[in-house]
Amino acid sequence: MTPATTAAPDPAEATATVTAETYAQVLQFYAHHMQLLDAGAAEEWADGFTEDGVFAQNVKPEPWTGRTHIATSMRRGLARLAERGVQRRHWLSMVVAEPAPADAAGETYDEAVRTRYYAVVFETPRGGQASVYLSTTGEDLLVRRGAQWFIRHRLISHDGV
Amino acid sequence: MTPATTAAPDPAEATATVTAETYAQVLQFYAHHMQLLDAGAAEEWADGFTEDGVFAQNVKPEPWTGRTHIATSMRRGLARLAERGVQRRHWLSMVVAEPAPADAAGETYDEAVRTRYYAVVFETPRGGQASVYLSTTGEDLLVRRGAQWFIRHRLISHDGV
Amino acid sequence: MTPATTAAPDPAEATATVTAETYAQVLQFYAHHMQLLDAGAAEEWADGFTEDGVFAQNVKPEPWTGRTHIATSMRRGLARLAERGVQRRHWLSMVVAEPAPADAAGETYDEAVRTRYYAVVFETPRGGQASVYLSTTGEDLLVRRGAQWFIRHRLISHDGV
Repeated sequence: MTPATTAAPDPAEATATVTAETYAQVLQFYAHHMQLLDAGAAEEWADGFTEDGVFAQNVKPEPWTGRTHIATSMRRGLARLAERGVQRRHWLSMVVAEPAPADAAGETYDEAVRTRYYAVVFETPRGGQASVYLSTTGEDLLVRRGAQWFIRHRLISHDGV
Repeated sequence: MTPATTAAPDPAEATATVTAETYAQVLQFYAHHMQLLDAGAAEEWADGFTEDGVFAQNVKPEPWTGRTHIATSMRRGLARLAERGVQRRHWLSMVVAEPAPADAAGETYDEAVRTRYYAVVFETPRGGQASVYLSTTGEDLLVRRGAQWFIRHRLISHDGV
Repeated sequence: MTPATTAAPDPAEATATVTAETYAQVLQFYAHHMQLLDAGAAEEWADGFTEDGVFAQNVKPEPWTGRTHIATSMRRGLARLAERGVQRRHWLSMVVAEPAPADAAGETYDEAVRTRYYAVVFETPRGGQASVYLSTTGEDLLVRRGAQWFIRHRLISHDGV
């Protein structure tokens, strides 16, 4: 057992929760967002972040900051993957969602939600056998403008690090 | 990265969405339906398709067409599996659900939904170790009659093919 | 194919269902509960059972009975895991939830739900590769007091046994 990581919730604070409507929207946002990534659509996937969004990982010294930086960095990763002929599938599940303040960095959103979740990546080489590539936990700050959800801040923590 | 497959959504069209009530019903329909399959109940599983339902896979030259054909074909597959003493578990998740026209092939349903999702099959041999057997994406046209959901058309695309 | 196990539903009875609100609460209860377990918080995890809760597994001769017994037993298991430096992640999904009588053992709850689901455990050793450790099915009787859900009875059936 590694020490408590990002996905270790405070047991006392799990009372506030979002509506079923918001929860269903968040699950579908995640599903659509990951389908874009696994289809190789780096730019459309990056559009799921706010313009000033941040994507941090415990295996990277620096976070990717801003939608353009996020798109460019992911595009490079996907290109390397394409050369290897590997199909990845990002599964994101076990989502806990809690209301968050809708004001952040001087901007007011229609709704904000903080999530904690698990994510696993499956990998299938062309003509080969599927396997588990990676197990992670994640923490997002999601914000909504109208009917559209965005990631304002994401922290992904790889297991085993 | 393989070229864009069935699970590659059009980024521009992800606006229309179903209610939380419909989304919860769809998730539970899928859970129940897969539990039937993994319990070996081929006929009850096939009852989850409309009478004229279609089950297509990218690894089969011809789709299975009609509930009877679907039941018979799956029954044969399950019999082979039973001989090997293997327990499969079909996980279906990462579901995006969008409203679809409720009129199809001259029939009017109470509701229709188009879904895109990921599905993985885990396998455990008797006395052995669990593993990932298969990673796929899927696209369904679901229809509702009263409280009951059915699959009118399913396309499963195996990764790595 | 093993003989029909706990996750084999009666095809005829899948009509009664819970509201989207209850379903979203149940999914989030499961996510939060498993995040506590995987963070090593045995006691807080055990608080997710009623005081007289039961945790039965098909691989154990006797169920764990009562919150204190459940906490002590899980604490021992987590300590062994910590010595090995392995991070487990319990994924619980494919949940079917049905209303159940809210009176049980002389106590009246605000709501009761019976669930059938799949659960998989992923494992990542420190510095090592993620893999599937275990595939199971589960059956819970959940009860609600105010906004708080609890497990009154859980049966986990490991595949391949």
